[in-house]
Amino acid sequence: MMSDASQVIEVLGIRAKSAAQKMRLMETKHKDAALKIAARLLREDMDDVLAANALDMKAADEHNLEAALKDRLALNPERVEAMAQGLEEIAALPDPVGAISDLVYRPSGIQVGHMRVPLGVIGIIYESRPNVTADAAALCLKSGNAAILRGGSEAIHSNQAIALILRQALKEAGVPEDAVQLINQTDRALVGALLAADEYVDVLIPRGGKSLVSRVSQDAKVPVIKHLDGICHVYIDKDADREMAVDIALNAKTHRYGVCNAMETLLVHQDAMDCLPVIIKRLLDKGVEVRGCDKTQALHQHVLAANEEDWGTEYLAPVLSIRVVDDLEQAIVHIEQYSSAHTETIVTANYDAGQLFLRQVDSSSVMWNASTRFADGFEYGLGAEIGISTDRLHVRGPVGLEGLTTQKWIVLGHGEVRG
Amino acid sequence: MMSDASQVIEVLGIRAKSAAQKMRLMETKHKDAALKIAARLLREDMDDVLAANALDMKAADEHNLEAALKDRLALNPERVEAMAQGLEEIAALPDPVGAISDLVYRPSGIQVGHMRVPLGVIGIIYESRPNVTADAAALCLKSGNAAILRGGSEAIHSNQAIALILRQALKEAGVPEDAVQLINQTDRALVGALLAADEYVDVLIPRGGKSLVSRVSQDAKVPVIKHLDGICHVYIDKDADREMAVDIALNAKTHRYGVCNAMETLLVHQDAMDCLPVIIKRLLDKGVEVRGCDKTQALHQHVLAANEEDWGTEYLAPVLSIRVVDDLEQAIVHIEQYSSAHTETIVTANYDAGQLFLRQVDSSSVMWNASTRFADGFEYGLGAEIGISTDRLHVRGPVGLEGLTTQKWIVLGHGEVRG
Repeated sequence: MMSDASQVIEVLGIRAKSAAQKMRLMETKHKDAALKIAARLLREDMDDVLAANALDMKAADEHNLEAALKDRLALNPERVEAMAQGLEEIAALPDPVGAISDLVYRPSGIQVGHMRVPLGVIGIIYESRPNVTADAAALCLKSGNAAILRGGSEAIHSNQAIALILRQALKEAGVPEDAVQLINQTDRALVGALLAADEYVDVLIPRGGKSLVSRVSQDAKVPVIKHLDGICHVYIDKDADREMAVDIALNAKTHRYGVCNAMETLLVHQDAMDCLPVIIKRLLDKGVEVRGCDKTQALHQHVLAANEEDWGTEYLAPVLSIRVVDDLEQAIVHIEQYSSAHTETIVTANYDAGQLFLRQVDSSSVMWNASTRFADGFEYGLGAEIGISTDRLHVRGPVGLEGLTTQKWIVLGHGEVRG
Repeated sequence: MMSDASQVIEVLGIRAKSAAQKMRLMETKHKDAALKIAARLLREDMDDVLAANALDMKAADEHNLEAALKDRLALNPERVEAMAQGLEEIAALPDPVGAISDLVYRPSGIQVGHMRVPLGVIGIIYESRPNVTADAAALCLKSGNAAILRGGSEAIHSNQAIALILRQALKEAGVPEDAVQLINQTDRALVGALLAADEYVDVLIPRGGKSLVSRVSQDAKVPVIKHLDGICHVYIDKDADREMAVDIALNAKTHRYGVCNAMETLLVHQDAMDCLPVIIKRLLDKGVEVRGCDKTQALHQHVLAANEEDWGTEYLAPVLSIRVVDDLEQAIVHIEQYSSAHTETIVTANYDAGQLFLRQVDSSSVMWNASTRFADGFEYGLGAEIGISTDRLHVRGPVGLEGLTTQKWIVLGHGEVRG
């Protein structure tokens, strides 16, 4: 017998699959119209959204939610306006669906190529930020998919208000409303049922903290596109331009602390240590706690000792560990051992060193003379991103509209048969 | 405590991971040299391979293996020569690893693009054909991966002899021997341990019958690239060139019966029924059993009744089910309901009908005026194939060298930082 949770998900799944079939052929102009109408309705019905959010905020107070969580949960007119603008930006992106590439003639006479097609039904599991409801739904919609959304229980009223607006916009634009469905109950068993719904859901994307992502990827029967740690490295080579090295190291650490593409460990060639005193001084001036190996500690009295655990830690905070290495090879070995394969950069003017680093380092983004902070869908030109994948298959690094699609083969013939 | 099986797999996994790190940077000429040496050794040591195969064949006799299985297991000089030629053909293919594409300048000044990289460690689980040992290892090797091979227990001696040759060739070419490892014991618990080895194995590819593939994809913690059913359809539209329709239908069904890209159901527009009598007659002449809907049965006394189960059956045999449909839309609905999303083809001279079919049908290969039999890595120009994927993510349809790789982002800068 099916559990209640499975039955709820089955109903959503059947509707999503049916919507996905229609979405596959949906014309770009209808999808874009739906996004633009949703943006307009978000502005027109802003009071409804804010009133729903007030209910969530009241419950958050009652449950003594921590301040950081409440900040993520809170909506105000500026944040709703930003959501509306986000929808309009996604409407303005090119539609990836139906694009045909690499169509070539084969000796048999057939033409063979690829056509880009939607993935189908995408489940998004996220935490307290209500804006994910609009962002994620819009990316799924534009890429021709149907979305099943499961937000955090603390944001249920906000998410319901936003989902209502999205579905109304879909209806007005003549697009199936069930292309966006929000799981309307906070029952945790529903997440379990969604993870198991491989008959209805083509891929799951968890968006949130590490414990959520780990749970989803551990338990899911459905394929998952996931983002785990961002333990990112900057390596300053002996042949680095020193000024550039200082700029990149400072930017990679201090531009923003709580982001996955911030540097967590700085590796410095022993012959490039001359740039360390100024880097350390500037970091300390900015209030960054600096931990280092013995050689680094010897440079400044306020450098704390880095231990084994530091090399494998994603601080997401004003803390940096620094290690002096013998050479490029030792830097690469360190990265292989401790990196989370998110983003690594080398600073060097040496062609061979840069080429080797680009080839050998196996991370989703590998950079040469640029800040790790560029690992981002907008900076890469994707227009928007649903997340950053640290998986190897299907899509790596920033995931935009194309990552929410796949390709099928198409064959154009003139009556060819195999002989 | 770890089981013995887990420990065996862990040792193989550690070695494979270490080999994979070296394979990532391995120059094309060394990989190609290993493949060519392996081809030479297969010819030179053919007697060893045949002697090992004789042991397997003797055991097969003792265990009363069925004839079809014994045929798949058997090696002879021609089959070993074919294996050697297969290795040489893979050596002659272009190396996909390291290829950089779509490198563009962004407004920030950075250049952003993709670099193609190996997947890492690939586990191949297969059944009785010993040639898979050479084929699969060669494709993994050329694409810069390390392979862990698990063949059928009935082929253990043959596989060991072939793996020995492959490893010797790797050694002679200066390529890490552990890039090819065969699981040397027939203990079934080892398969379970391999399916769980997500710390060491990046992807699993099961090659074999449906029960093997189902078990692997059900139980694996490691991502799987799988091939399930091939319930392929040909749809003859009202605007089909009748001669072409007859040729394609006959070829799709009768060119080979036991292959996944053979047609299993023929759909015919009610206004194109005029081509059915000749198709049915020719099929019956070739000894194909024809089952059909009422309208089809009315055309010929030897057409049996097709029931609901027929529409969802992959016969892999000289059997065909035929259904007359009202229109293109009904054909597409039938395909959506019963197809295994492998390969579908429309025969039509009508532009709108063909375009709609290409867009709407969601199979790994969708064809227009060509036989389903073209769904094949060689016919598509991949040079070789490790299988055909019926998955949606990562790779769909015939999987060649590129399907055994992934892409990372590369960023080339000049000191850019984020402002």
